[in-house]
Amino acid sequence: MIERSNQGGEQRRLEQHTPTKHNKTMENNELIGLVAGTLTTVSFVPQVLKTWKSRSAKDISLGMFLMFSLGVALWLIYGIGISSMPVILANAITLVLAIGIILMKVTFK
Amino acid sequence: MIERSNQGGEQRRLEQHTPTKHNKTMENNELIGLVAGTLTTVSFVPQVLKTWKSRSAKDISLGMFLMFSLGVALWLIYGIGISSMPVILANAITLVLAIGIILMKVTFK
Repeated sequence: MIERSNQGGEQRRLEQHTPTKHNKTMENNELIGLVAGTLTTVSFVPQVLKTWKSRSAKDISLGMFLMFSLGVALWLIYGIGISSMPVILANAITLVLAIGIILMKVTFK
Repeated sequence: MIERSNQGGEQRRLEQHTPTKHNKTMENNELIGLVAGTLTTVSFVPQVLKTWKSRSAKDISLGMFLMFSLGVALWLIYGIGISSMPVILANAITLVLAIGIILMKVTFK
């Protein structure tokens, strides 16, 4: 979209669209966080699949998993508190997976 | 826009020196993050101890653990980038534990 405006408008438009060092750093952080979250969340999926397929969860400690899930829930609250999209996304997905494992543990054993 | 009245100046000065709601929220976030990190990190310790005691890590997938460790390393970099003490602490400790498991996996198998 081409904006036909006076010089003042041009200036503002440039300021808005020029990536500042600060913005670039924020974008890089966000990207690193999203890759980090993808890796730690994806590495958790095989456990979920294994438990689902084997219909067995006797080697999984319910206490440890409840502790882990509470921790993930608090990470989610922390992520919302500091407005960190990577922390929110990663922990929301991990929480769903962790609750899934707890439900399987309670159902299958 | 910028207010140039005397009242505006007083207002700003007061806002700077009074402990604000914003600071309290930041402290609460930090606390929630530290509890979250303690729970998720502590729930990881039994795996390390189990592997150490049994001298066996055949059920642990090296690929998954390398992926997880890389993710944790990136979370650590992310934590440094956004200056989040809970993210830095939790992932620094988890990274040490995860590298410990990888070393055991490579040594014991």
